[in-house]
Amino acid sequence: MTTDFSDTYFMRQALLEAQQALAEEEIPIGAVVVLDNKIIGRGHNQTERLRDVTAHAEMLALTAAANHVGNKYLAGATLYVTVEPCVMCAGASYWAQVARVVFGAEELKVGFRRFGHLLHPRTKLLGGVLADECVALMRDFFALKRK
Amino acid sequence: MTTDFSDTYFMRQALLEAQQALAEEEIPIGAVVVLDNKIIGRGHNQTERLRDVTAHAEMLALTAAANHVGNKYLAGATLYVTVEPCVMCAGASYWAQVARVVFGAEELKVGFRRFGHLLHPRTKLLGGVLADECVALMRDFFALKRK
Repeated sequence: MTTDFSDTYFMRQALLEAQQALAEEEIPIGAVVVLDNKIIGRGHNQTERLRDVTAHAEMLALTAAANHVGNKYLAGATLYVTVEPCVMCAGASYWAQVARVVFGAEELKVGFRRFGHLLHPRTKLLGGVLADECVALMRDFFALKRK
Repeated sequence: MTTDFSDTYFMRQALLEAQQALAEEEIPIGAVVVLDNKIIGRGHNQTERLRDVTAHAEMLALTAAANHVGNKYLAGATLYVTVEPCVMCAGASYWAQVARVVFGAEELKVGFRRFGHLLHPRTKLLGGVLADECVALMRDFFALKRK
């Protein structure tokens, strides 16, 4: 039996990270960086725990991936993230020159797409993978927060 | 005798950080974060040493400042940086909600201003402080690299 290394498969891995964030009472966003069907970096939002606005899931996953391969450039890699990246994280993906950014839920308020073409010209974009599950986690979190 | 805590004064501090980057053969960009005339975070570009695209001067200075004050929000603080921030760093300053971003040299290719209003609505922007000195450091670095 072989594993089907699809975008859905890797987004489920990012969702596991998002669930970890939820367990830590962080905004539930998770990310993984994948190269040649192998996860080379993982991260989940830790802005509260670390008291650091830069500790977004994508940033931590990109840094972990660069550490893993010993190269700050992640050409050929795909960044999977449960929610559309913000401007900061889009900018980080630009510098890393990832081949693809794949996100789950769209983010109309602080998602990067509002601001135009912030990704590297070499980076392809795909949205909406497991969007319902990614949105549901966010909705649960904010519903809990309002209580 | 009192110190004149001007934008020029703090940009000189950012320039000291940039010189440190140069000494480490990094692209010479430096940053400091200032609150109530006190430097609460410093950073210089370390993308080569750390092999990490997120290790820009501003990111390191913002993280250091947040650690120092124990708060991820840096309301009232000013981010000084020797070169116009990129999209990633502009995005980080958005999340930190700094009161001001003050830069030295403009960066026409990868500076954030090309992409429109990426700063937080509360953040004021000032460019051109000690621009000649900030540019000179960059020019020296790239001239050396070409040799």
